[in-house]
Amino acid sequence: MGIQGWMRVEVLTVGRELLIGKTVNTNAHWIGGRLARMGTRLSRITTVDDDLREISSSVRESLRRKPEFMVVVGGLGPTPDDMTLAGIAKGLHRRLALNGEALRMVRDHYVEMGRGDLKLTSARRKMARLPLGATPLKNTVGTAPGVRLEARGTIIFALPGVPREMKSVFRRSPEGEIRQRLGRLHTRTVILKLERIFESTLAPILKRTMKRYPNVYIKSHPKGVEEGVSKIELDVVVVSKRRADSTKISEMIASELKREVARAGGTVLSTR
Amino acid sequence: MGIQGWMRVEVLTVGRELLIGKTVNTNAHWIGGRLARMGTRLSRITTVDDDLREISSSVRESLRRKPEFMVVVGGLGPTPDDMTLAGIAKGLHRRLALNGEALRMVRDHYVEMGRGDLKLTSARRKMARLPLGATPLKNTVGTAPGVRLEARGTIIFALPGVPREMKSVFRRSPEGEIRQRLGRLHTRTVILKLERIFESTLAPILKRTMKRYPNVYIKSHPKGVEEGVSKIELDVVVVSKRRADSTKISEMIASELKREVARAGGTVLSTR
Repeated sequence: MGIQGWMRVEVLTVGRELLIGKTVNTNAHWIGGRLARMGTRLSRITTVDDDLREISSSVRESLRRKPEFMVVVGGLGPTPDDMTLAGIAKGLHRRLALNGEALRMVRDHYVEMGRGDLKLTSARRKMARLPLGATPLKNTVGTAPGVRLEARGTIIFALPGVPREMKSVFRRSPEGEIRQRLGRLHTRTVILKLERIFESTLAPILKRTMKRYPNVYIKSHPKGVEEGVSKIELDVVVVSKRRADSTKISEMIASELKREVARAGGTVLSTR
Repeated sequence: MGIQGWMRVEVLTVGRELLIGKTVNTNAHWIGGRLARMGTRLSRITTVDDDLREISSSVRESLRRKPEFMVVVGGLGPTPDDMTLAGIAKGLHRRLALNGEALRMVRDHYVEMGRGDLKLTSARRKMARLPLGATPLKNTVGTAPGVRLEARGTIIFALPGVPREMKSVFRRSPEGEIRQRLGRLHTRTVILKLERIFESTLAPILKRTMKRYPNVYIKSHPKGVEEGVSKIELDVVVVSKRRADSTKISEMIASELKREVARAGGTVLSTR
């Protein structure tokens, strides 16, 4: 099923709130959307608890899959449940050490908030204790710096979990580096809304189309039955090095699908 | 960090829409909330693409962590992008085979919709091709049955990805079996809303509390700064075999924390 040449990018979100039905994982969703707009996509999202062993083993497991990038989100703060950096260090068999640049960032943030009087207690210094070899990434919105490090051919970014901070740090640094590595690919998505056709009737049509166009991905989303009429949404995604190609191919496929769906008794309501 | 005696339950959600920023993973969130209300919690959520190798390898990796239960969601339908059962079968080195009971469920569903005339094409039969040794779970809302199977000590459930169908199948079968295995545990969560205290000031207070009460979990959620005032939400979770114990302990901790936060210059706004 495949568009060739995808990079492997994994997201690891850390936080019990994501496992107990308290918080919906909008951070992973947001990062997935950013990558999709760049013309690539996430390979995997993993969510684990605020637990040293869970974090370290999931980092190790991810590295075994050899992603180009791993983006770890959450658990960079000063409280005892924040243990992402310790987990990454454990997973990589590295020590944590106080990083001078990170400590300056933490101190500067308190100064900017008009609280330069606050002592750099061990809880505050913890935000500047990074795995050996890591560099801090400036967080202009909150206190805890982001982190960048390389291990076994993978570039690992650790970002704060507060969505506003996560987005700000992601845009400042990981995004540019991922985009640079990726080069330029153009993605074109056409959405078809179908009625009066069963997914099971549609299945062989999609199979034939995807066989004819190997660099095209078609995903079918059944939207259930409304007022006795079955509804389906189809995403047709074409990725290509040239923008003109992806537009042309997606238009060809859309018109072919419309014809075939009509022949099977269904209706294509709209395309956008 | 820890409450002893948790079961390990993992969720594997399958679907490209979750990786490209199209759909927020509300299914995993909903299952996480159900388990939390039963007094246990998810250990991990993994999200992978509609891709045979990704699905099979993530199933194998999950089994290595020896969860009591694995709940796989999505990819049970008739279209070519639905390949969860093939992925599970590959991961377990089992064959897929047409299951008579599952086929009856699929046929019955078309009959109930007044479409008993539809031929059981290969796309429709695909929904009844289960890994060897699996049993189908009735889906009263949609066409594709759920699936239950056991492998290497883990009970695996596969549920359809349409939220309404997922919830219906989950409530009919996995929920009861998980609850039975779990026995009865009582969870009590107290939420404290704090103002005018830095997370980094709070950190040593939480550390002391969690040391004193090893079966209590405290999670701190920084809510940012509003109108110059820093806000934090604290979840205090107590799990116990006896309801009275968890209530008593959570009240003790809440009043201790209120006292300590006040001593550090902060305010506890509300508890619920």
